[in-house]
Amino acid sequence: MSPAASRFPAARYGERLTHAAGLGAAAGLDALLITPGPDLRYLLGSRAESFERLTCLVVPTDGSAATVVVPRLELAALRDSAVAELGVPVHDWVDGQNPYALVADLVPGSGHIAVAEAMPALHLVPLAAKFGAVPVLATEVIRQLRMIKDADEIEALRRAGAAIDRVHARMGEWLRPGRTEAQVAADITAAILAEGHTEAAFVIVGSGPHGADPHHEVSDRVIARGDIVVIDIGGPVEPGYNSDSTRTYSIGDPDPAVAARIAVLEAAQQAAVAAVAPGVRAEDVDAAARDLLAAEGLAEAFVHRTGHGIGLSVHEEPYIVGGNTEPLRPGMAFSIEPGIYFRGEWGARIEDIVVVTADGCESVNRRPHELTVLPG
Amino acid sequence: MSPAASRFPAARYGERLTHAAGLGAAAGLDALLITPGPDLRYLLGSRAESFERLTCLVVPTDGSAATVVVPRLELAALRDSAVAELGVPVHDWVDGQNPYALVADLVPGSGHIAVAEAMPALHLVPLAAKFGAVPVLATEVIRQLRMIKDADEIEALRRAGAAIDRVHARMGEWLRPGRTEAQVAADITAAILAEGHTEAAFVIVGSGPHGADPHHEVSDRVIARGDIVVIDIGGPVEPGYNSDSTRTYSIGDPDPAVAARIAVLEAAQQAAVAAVAPGVRAEDVDAAARDLLAAEGLAEAFVHRTGHGIGLSVHEEPYIVGGNTEPLRPGMAFSIEPGIYFRGEWGARIEDIVVVTADGCESVNRRPHELTVLPG
Repeated sequence: MSPAASRFPAARYGERLTHAAGLGAAAGLDALLITPGPDLRYLLGSRAESFERLTCLVVPTDGSAATVVVPRLELAALRDSAVAELGVPVHDWVDGQNPYALVADLVPGSGHIAVAEAMPALHLVPLAAKFGAVPVLATEVIRQLRMIKDADEIEALRRAGAAIDRVHARMGEWLRPGRTEAQVAADITAAILAEGHTEAAFVIVGSGPHGADPHHEVSDRVIARGDIVVIDIGGPVEPGYNSDSTRTYSIGDPDPAVAARIAVLEAAQQAAVAAVAPGVRAEDVDAAARDLLAAEGLAEAFVHRTGHGIGLSVHEEPYIVGGNTEPLRPGMAFSIEPGIYFRGEWGARIEDIVVVTADGCESVNRRPHELTVLPG
Repeated sequence: MSPAASRFPAARYGERLTHAAGLGAAAGLDALLITPGPDLRYLLGSRAESFERLTCLVVPTDGSAATVVVPRLELAALRDSAVAELGVPVHDWVDGQNPYALVADLVPGSGHIAVAEAMPALHLVPLAAKFGAVPVLATEVIRQLRMIKDADEIEALRRAGAAIDRVHARMGEWLRPGRTEAQVAADITAAILAEGHTEAAFVIVGSGPHGADPHHEVSDRVIARGDIVVIDIGGPVEPGYNSDSTRTYSIGDPDPAVAARIAVLEAAQQAAVAAVAPGVRAEDVDAAARDLLAAEGLAEAFVHRTGHGIGLSVHEEPYIVGGNTEPLRPGMAFSIEPGIYFRGEWGARIEDIVVVTADGCESVNRRPHELTVLPG
């Protein structure tokens, strides 16, 4: 596969479909109904989007063929997918036909269906009416597949990580006093694309007090000497796998008390990374960062979970959060991104994506973790 | 309101919330549950996006206050909305809390709920489980509001129409033989943004045989002398209202037989526009275009509906399609876009957005409709 291809070889999707059907059968389901979104990209390599007309992959669990129901007008959206090579049957429909009845006809057994998380109510409500019951989420089945990345998926995550590292490496070109967060973000967006992403999925430039809001995006605030700035950026590279990396910068020399706290945060991030190994529970990784921050009096400043899985979605399973007892397994990929936030003052966050290995983890991000001091 | 503001004055949203609650009560519903998407923008002026953590506006129909349930981490996403000015109560929640229980506590009566079309299964399935029933779509209530545009919404559609007309007016700068569809599309995308859209929502450049696929987007096909090219473009202008206009171009002088068929298409488009008036059924407008094409032997070439409503969504009600007996009313806005398609050869489409007036309609697009001949 060339790095720019939008999907893996078709056979990979054939294996995934078979595997998903088997897991669905084991879960007592009659079929999985997958509308456009990351699950459809995972199972068919399709980048089709969701519109008001129903597109739906039906994966029966009784061994009969997976089939795509698609509006005739949108057939072209399947062209780049594995549908043709795999010989997946396609039932196209035209305005005036009832696509929900077409789907129902393809579901075997008693109609115990599971639906993709991304399916909008627009389609889910009529399907539920057709089957006379609330479906369950297909997530419980598909997470078992999507959570464990294979070698090619890990390689795609490495390419994404290297691409976003190259953007962070150039931050000093853009992040300067006198410029607004929005101006810096525009330059970062262009660099994210130039470094090989197909989209800049998110660009957070949180300067000074804005850094204290973990989900601040950008504003017209002018960056000033002495600011601490949180830069959290990422997006997908082909075939759809995402980067996500945060570094914290200081515009000019930082206040020593601030620098000391950020050094504690760095230690917390590294403690969480060091905690990762097969068999360790997701919540234990969260605790590793949280306990270290708490021991330094920073428990109240860490207001979010430690991380989230990543792959075809920026946020997916496993979530690295208290209460998640999921044991880590080789091939799981997730962020480790503790942060500390002081309302009205400043914030800091350090984030790498790691992949669980046989005996620990590999970080796909390689930029230095410490507070990076830029000219002020 | 300045043209660049992301929403109307707060009072407008207060009226809409009251109106929606009243319509919900009349429909026998206890509450409307509105997650991020065009319905939330309509009711609160909020551009919040949907993530794995639930954000949901609860609109009870018993006169109690509409309330927003939102993750504490995403509170900032409500900042630009009308929430603060209207004093809408906000229930924020943190990881570990059950947001579906928070929503359920806000629903009065027996829990007969309706959900926004855009709500993903990720949130709909747990809500349905909480309420023990499949919800209905809130569309039936909200469409009654969103379908009838007020004076400010119509003004926004006029601004959107004028902006996309300015892009079509410059088409000769970009659409030239020897360039690929993708190159032309990149220039069009930049112009869509430069002319005041916040996003280029779609850019279709269908040249030669690609024009025969109504949903073709772009490719690396090189445009050649003699090509007929379908250009269908649009996107939102603040506060979120979309443009959508198609014109068909000829690269050099067209084959006279082709030009004659496109002249018939132009007459069909104008016949449909002329059919629009209050009280006329949506399907009658479709029939006006379809019958004229059929009379000229082009029935088989017109493979899609005549149009779709437009506003905060590019595609919304009313749909101008056979079977839709909805009577048109002043303030409805929709596309009129018949097309003719000859597989493997060429296609053509002509599209304007019109707004129903007291005695007919106003087109917000003013570019000439005939086949535009560009230097070949």
